[in-house]
Amino acid sequence: MSPHPVTSVDVARATGLSQATVSRALNGGVVSAAARERVLAASRDLGYRPNDVARGLVTRRTGTVGVVVSDILNPFYPEFLEALGAALGARGGRMLLQNAASGGAEGEATAIESLLRQRVDGIIVTAATDDSSAVRELVASGFPVVLAHRTLPIAVDTVESDNAGGAALMAELLHRRGHRTVGVLEGDPGTSTARQRGEGFAARARELGLTVQTTPAGFAASTARVAADAMLSRGERPTAIVGHNDTIALAALNAARELGLRVPRDVAVAGFDDIAAAGWAIVGLTTVRQPTARMAQRAVDLLAGRIEDPSLPPRREVLPVELIERTSTGGAA
Amino acid sequence: MSPHPVTSVDVARATGLSQATVSRALNGGVVSAAARERVLAASRDLGYRPNDVARGLVTRRTGTVGVVVSDILNPFYPEFLEALGAALGARGGRMLLQNAASGGAEGEATAIESLLRQRVDGIIVTAATDDSSAVRELVASGFPVVLAHRTLPIAVDTVESDNAGGAALMAELLHRRGHRTVGVLEGDPGTSTARQRGEGFAARARELGLTVQTTPAGFAASTARVAADAMLSRGERPTAIVGHNDTIALAALNAARELGLRVPRDVAVAGFDDIAAAGWAIVGLTTVRQPTARMAQRAVDLLAGRIEDPSLPPRREVLPVELIERTSTGGAA
Repeated sequence: MSPHPVTSVDVARATGLSQATVSRALNGGVVSAAARERVLAASRDLGYRPNDVARGLVTRRTGTVGVVVSDILNPFYPEFLEALGAALGARGGRMLLQNAASGGAEGEATAIESLLRQRVDGIIVTAATDDSSAVRELVASGFPVVLAHRTLPIAVDTVESDNAGGAALMAELLHRRGHRTVGVLEGDPGTSTARQRGEGFAARARELGLTVQTTPAGFAASTARVAADAMLSRGERPTAIVGHNDTIALAALNAARELGLRVPRDVAVAGFDDIAAAGWAIVGLTTVRQPTARMAQRAVDLLAGRIEDPSLPPRREVLPVELIERTSTGGAA
Repeated sequence: MSPHPVTSVDVARATGLSQATVSRALNGGVVSAAARERVLAASRDLGYRPNDVARGLVTRRTGTVGVVVSDILNPFYPEFLEALGAALGARGGRMLLQNAASGGAEGEATAIESLLRQRVDGIIVTAATDDSSAVRELVASGFPVVLAHRTLPIAVDTVESDNAGGAALMAELLHRRGHRTVGVLEGDPGTSTARQRGEGFAARARELGLTVQTTPAGFAASTARVAADAMLSRGERPTAIVGHNDTIALAALNAARELGLRVPRDVAVAGFDDIAAAGWAIVGLTTVRQPTARMAQRAVDLLAGRIEDPSLPPRREVLPVELIERTSTGGAA
């Protein structure tokens, strides 16, 4: 008599195959005919019977959550996706990604449609914009949805960073460092992040008596570079530039380097997000750190709660951020 | 009588809804009840009937291709995924991503299993390793698979860069720049890319009389940084360091900065891949450019061919690379 119930681990050990292979062989997945035969023979010999109750609990739902991203070239998103995958994995779930890429609202609609066809249990949308009609329709349909990172003014579970608060901290830092005229390179209009960061900065800057010059830059490196070049080439250049994300700020650092401007002596530069590159010694970008891992965790928790109980009232969480000063505004190396 | 057959575009125009919404309404997707009613009414009024023949051609297959990645924190992969998505989109297909993350071979097996359950038409694996038993089993099963970027010594459709040739070009450049002792920070053993780059560099270095010091660094920023610190802190430091990818080389640049070493005067640094950050003015990393867009295009072409005709003999394509010299080895800014 076996000292413990026979499990798929025992079958894996007996056959010398991986547990994943054993699982696939027993669940009709793709394995070689030889492997399937070995697994079935060993299961018979060991008296292994897959636990149908446990399996039912797992397969009642697919265990798969769809995630929609729109700009995987902005390192914030891969970092956030990695955290989402880890948070889902810790619950035994999986993540299926759809990159809406440059498809805009139509690309997003196609991405959502594709995930629905794949029978995901719920969807986390990481990059909603005011144009996200497909997201609004999805929410209206009652399908489990969480908006993470970017939000919409609709009744839906949401987790976001304190973008306005972080931007206010940045205004205070720049004022403290002696800046009186600050240029702001704005992200995509129609996104909650750009709006909150813009408004949070402007409100605190007004209180502090800072002069703010704003220019639309877009969240992408290419558009941001054009805007940064223009701002840095002006006769009356601001003494500090803030980008609405780190990608914009990095474009400003590159523009400054190519124009022969020293950072922070000739111009200070700061961003938002704290992507990995911001912390590189050769970059040293002052920024506002988003609580990426925590935001991912809460997005998964909110979605799991929504799937369990569709009748819950919509919840909205705003997570605290942290100002990280580095060399680009005169902080210590 | 209408001058052209009525299409879903006409229905979209008549209802003021997007074509994606019209398509969802007609195909049982998620739309609001009001939108569905408008679409059905307009379809009736216009005499629109979805083209069942065309729809059959599309839905015989799912139109969805699964892509397995393992390290989305290395910017090479998001850049490659963006290119894969574009290449698939141009054929009217969609990409479903699975990130095996740090799950190693088991994570990869789970990712593949999940994609198979989602009924993808084929799978592109971007980060196979010698341990990829699930990939070998998948190929053995006859399911359409293409290995892109990294390969395995098995009979399977493959597209990769000329990693050995690129590494040889790098050895020649460093020799030409006067270096005689070069440190190589090696990527993950058990990957074709690390092996090919290592062997290509070593072979040409031997012919040129270069002394090569190798250290395992791993492809990740954290492990690479430890290896770079160790190599740069030696009494007899090499005059140039080559990383097996740009992430490793960037770790070396950061290590050099923190150790107070000037690049390239005290130590030259070079990488492989040509990720976006390599070309930043504040980075200026000499590297070998992978033909990312072309590799993605060929991966999609190979997979489409395989899906059409499973009896094709396996094809193996090696794409040419390009040496890009920047300031980190003394090139022009």
